[in-house]
Amino acid sequence: MTFRASVLTLYPDMFPGPLGHSMAGRALEEGKWALDVTNIRDFATDKHKTVDDTPAGGGAGMVLRCDVVASALDAVSYGTRPVLAMTPRGKPLTQARVRELAAGPGAVILCGRFEGFDERLFEARNIEEVSIGDYILSGGEMAALVLLDACIRLQDGVMGAASSGEEESFEEGLLEYPHYTRPVEWEGRTIPEVLRSGDHAKIAEWRKSRAIDDTRARRPDLWEAHGEHPDQSPSAARRKKKRD
Amino acid sequence: MTFRASVLTLYPDMFPGPLGHSMAGRALEEGKWALDVTNIRDFATDKHKTVDDTPAGGGAGMVLRCDVVASALDAVSYGTRPVLAMTPRGKPLTQARVRELAAGPGAVILCGRFEGFDERLFEARNIEEVSIGDYILSGGEMAALVLLDACIRLQDGVMGAASSGEEESFEEGLLEYPHYTRPVEWEGRTIPEVLRSGDHAKIAEWRKSRAIDDTRARRPDLWEAHGEHPDQSPSAARRKKKRD
Repeated sequence: MTFRASVLTLYPDMFPGPLGHSMAGRALEEGKWALDVTNIRDFATDKHKTVDDTPAGGGAGMVLRCDVVASALDAVSYGTRPVLAMTPRGKPLTQARVRELAAGPGAVILCGRFEGFDERLFEARNIEEVSIGDYILSGGEMAALVLLDACIRLQDGVMGAASSGEEESFEEGLLEYPHYTRPVEWEGRTIPEVLRSGDHAKIAEWRKSRAIDDTRARRPDLWEAHGEHPDQSPSAARRKKKRD
Repeated sequence: MTFRASVLTLYPDMFPGPLGHSMAGRALEEGKWALDVTNIRDFATDKHKTVDDTPAGGGAGMVLRCDVVASALDAVSYGTRPVLAMTPRGKPLTQARVRELAAGPGAVILCGRFEGFDERLFEARNIEEVSIGDYILSGGEMAALVLLDACIRLQDGVMGAASSGEEESFEEGLLEYPHYTRPVEWEGRTIPEVLRSGDHAKIAEWRKSRAIDDTRARRPDLWEAHGEHPDQSPSAARRKKKRD
């Protein structure tokens, strides 16, 4: 089963864009994922091809008409694929949701512009609102590219044997440990000795400990959500011992 | 002062990419922001143009060499611009940080690939690690595009008078209220009556109330962080009144 992305946008030329390069680009050429793009404007019904109108109740900006967007969406054969809308009001995207989506048949992705979609669209159709972060973009296109990039790299044969998809940030609810490589010494700084020890158990322990310590220090929110095993860090265990 | 973006990447062809279209693309042509792109590989010192090496301590993937990346970075005249690295271990990007960056002279942006940068790079140079969200991308390029898009739309004259940059999600620590536009009735669903009342005070109250209620329901984390004014929602005030 090939992961199929159907994107609905007012800027079809933005796709595949950066997804046409590097890993994702090669995978697209090799048929490891598929992409089709619909121009929402093609579903406007007046001679001016109007897709938006002023907000009910007043205010700046324009709102995408629910009738036009729904027509565009209803014309996509989405089968069992989930329909996602990239909006700042959506549920924050997580690596867990990326894994689920990547394992499925693909996604139909609505890209908003201006002030966003008429809310009735979300009441009348089964659409999952997704946010890639707490900041505002010029449109949903960049967010769709991000979501697709995250899903595509997890498709079979895309990353290749040399890369890892297992040990990385968020996979266990933690940030990943820091990395080092040659040269051993650079500007007076050396690679931590344990990583040069060849002692695999010690290396694994150091990495786990750094992943936990860095998550606690940098992302207390993630650490709190991780929560269940607060004492699995060797350094945390040492700290606990001192306190007892 | 023009916002200048300097991007360091192994995939220079990805830029400006989607930023060459629509609002950001027009603004780039009009000189409302500027972009230069450095290929990190040009700073490799061996004949194979090697930029990465295997992780110290073992494991899958490759790590970007700190010496090569530092050489590329040191060759950029960044003046007072902050140096950002797009990494999943970074500080989560917020609209507040976007506003700060957008108001400044620009940004120098390091895009990682593979397992990321040798950690010593962050110890030896003044680099702000930034994450656009809790998911893993194939590289920092897509994250750099997102960050730049968020900054560019806030540059003078980019959004135009018809768009709003004031009333939108996250600007007051809340999600934005939902939007509606014509047609008044669609598939049996009508625009909320208050929005058609012409009563500006009531409309403002309804919007504030929906922004608060939707933030509470969809993003309890944002609501908790917002915190200080828990009773400013008219509906919250009503609920409180009932409790008292």
